[in-house]
Amino acid sequence: MDKNLFEDVKRRFDEARFITGLGITLTETGDGLAVSVLDVEERHLQQDGFVHAGVVAAMADHTGGAAGWTLVDADKTVLTVEFKIHFLNPAKGPRLTCRSTVMRPGRKIISAESEVKNADGTLAAKLTMTLAVVSTTRVRS
Amino acid sequence: MDKNLFEDVKRRFDEARFITGLGITLTETGDGLAVSVLDVEERHLQQDGFVHAGVVAAMADHTGGAAGWTLVDADKTVLTVEFKIHFLNPAKGPRLTCRSTVMRPGRKIISAESEVKNADGTLAAKLTMTLAVVSTTRVRS
Amino acid sequence: MDKNLFEDVKRRFDEARFITGLGITLTETGDGLAVSVLDVEERHLQQDGFVHAGVVAAMADHTGGAAGWTLVDADKTVLTVEFKIHFLNPAKGPRLTCRSTVMRPGRKIISAESEVKNADGTLAAKLTMTLAVVSTTRVRS
Amino acid sequence: MDKNLFEDVKRRFDEARFITGLGITLTETGDGLAVSVLDVEERHLQQDGFVHAGVVAAMADHTGGAAGWTLVDADKTVLTVEFKIHFLNPAKGPRLTCRSTVMRPGRKIISAESEVKNADGTLAAKLTMTLAVVSTTRVRS
Repeated sequence: MDKNLFEDVKRRFDEARFITGLGITLTETGDGLAVSVLDVEERHLQQDGFVHAGVVAAMADHTGGAAGWTLVDADKTVLTVEFKIHFLNPAKGPRLTCRSTVMRPGRKIISAESEVKNADGTLAAKLTMTLAVVSTTRVRS
Repeated sequence: MDKNLFEDVKRRFDEARFITGLGITLTETGDGLAVSVLDVEERHLQQDGFVHAGVVAAMADHTGGAAGWTLVDADKTVLTVEFKIHFLNPAKGPRLTCRSTVMRPGRKIISAESEVKNADGTLAAKLTMTLAVVSTTRVRS
Repeated sequence: MDKNLFEDVKRRFDEARFITGLGITLTETGDGLAVSVLDVEERHLQQDGFVHAGVVAAMADHTGGAAGWTLVDADKTVLTVEFKIHFLNPAKGPRLTCRSTVMRPGRKIISAESEVKNADGTLAAKLTMTLAVVSTTRVRS
Repeated sequence: MDKNLFEDVKRRFDEARFITGLGITLTETGDGLAVSVLDVEERHLQQDGFVHAGVVAAMADHTGGAAGWTLVDADKTVLTVEFKIHFLNPAKGPRLTCRSTVMRPGRKIISAESEVKNADGTLAAKLTMTLAVVSTTRVRS
């Protein structure tokens, strides 16, 4: 693992207060790859005691964005244009792991996918997404 | 507005701790219709100061589910099979409003869509989703 | 209706042999708008006697692209990055009409949606899509 | 390969005139698996000389349905509720191969995915879909 790449992507990853507030943590990066984990708490749950679709979607979206960050220059960032997520099995504690990979890199558009798994290895959700590569200066202004 | 319908759907809506914890509030229901609002806070934001895609997605998903609840019996509930969301304009404070409608009702499968708008009326996001109608006893056991 | 716009978009529309071969015809354009029709024949059908999902998807995709063409310069074209389509009611003869509108214009990315209706006005399908705006010279080379 | 399974699914596959008319052929089945091929012809093309998105989508959709058929009884069939497809690289001749697998089986709802590859192994498109399992008598009546 390239430590500089990981540190750079982690810094970007943690800038989203919503994500760090949920407790989602980046654990690994590679070229076009990002992995994150979440230790499930009561506040993440929905009516049936499983993790809410919104938490799973936020994790799969943000980690997919991180996979995109591994491929863009420091003066560029990625924005989610759209994503689709299938909820395949109940998401539950104690821990969710999300693995995101880039399906197609590009200078303007990146396509990525994420898989969220339970601790027992069952596939909780699968997401596919489109990311726009944009200048950081344009986004922040 | 049918007050009994609203009270019933609101009770279901608020059972999801993740959603009430975020501050998302159901404000209106009708046959195949649900509306919710969110007063934006710092903790909802992402790196660029706009509302995180995960918050918008959670709101659009859960409110879409509520639109489904308006059409199912008390011993049935709905589960999100999948959704897709387009992020069309930055989502921002002070308030987001989500309006969800059922595109196609059904005994086993319901299709719905949600639009999330900013206070100035701009369309922040549009979601389409598939809900499975299931027995509440089966889900909770 | 701007006749030059219509002629320009129609020329692009008809360059796709697959679409003209199916019998899909552009009938109207506007800023961020395109409408097409298809007179249903035996060869468009699937196993249950309704129009095949692939025909409906091709119509909704290509007409959505046409809505995009109404907004780009002559030296640019659009490519479908992704689309999602919900099949809401059986698509059937004698005629399908597809109405596509741009949800969000952009210099690099355009988001559009299409609705395909039966002759009796029932909504057969709804599509949302992401288009990439690219130089025509790059695409054709 | 179970020959009876293959023959049964192939019979269902070929009932769609639109698909056989395009020249899409089922070549392999397994539990939750279906593979098809298409020899590309002029009539499949779009404006830039590549295979039209509608052809690729029809192939990925119908083969995904076939993966579903491998899991349902003779008195049941599957209907596409929705699908999403990403176009990742140009689809081109001489031959496209589509491999579809079931992500999640179910009595009422099946989730599947399809990958369409060019002869050189590049990934042209990736689709995820939701199938409804319904009685054949209900569909045909």
